[in-house]
Amino acid sequence: MSTIEIEYCVPCGFLDRALTVEEAICRQFADQLERVSLVMGDHGVFVVRVDDEIVFDKADDDFDVDDIVRQVRSHVAAR
Amino acid sequence: MSTIEIEYCVPCGFLDRALTVEEAICRQFADQLERVSLVMGDHGVFVVRVDDEIVFDKADDDFDVDDIVRQVRSHVAAR
Repeated sequence: MSTIEIEYCVPCGFLDRALTVEEAICRQFADQLERVSLVMGDHGVFVVRVDDEIVFDKADDDFDVDDIVRQVRSHVAAR
Repeated sequence: MSTIEIEYCVPCGFLDRALTVEEAICRQFADQLERVSLVMGDHGVFVVRVDDEIVFDKADDDFDVDDIVRQVRSHVAAR
């Protein structure tokens, strides 16, 4: 069972993106997960971690929900 | 800063309720929170905890988002 963190910049208004990603992840992988956390951040952060490993960082890649879900799938499936 | 857990029954299909509660909490209290977690559960569970203290349990009370938000507010504000 994996744990996922979605750290998002609160003042940037990234909550909607965080919720969109979280909902997609929960719908697809709930049976393989223990918890999915929204973590409040700032300074433009938007990072998704599976078991403390970064699978998406807005600083490195364009935001794409489907791509993030694919990244999560490959990491969750590897457990 | 507080942490919140929303434990929901996955097979019951309580994800939508969990997301609704989480979104309401994040919109109102993000500045006072460190993280909000969805925790996967079963057997009909729907429990909301603020810093490990139960503020809503579906086994005891009717589901009402506004009421849950009020409960969260009173516990977060008390920090």
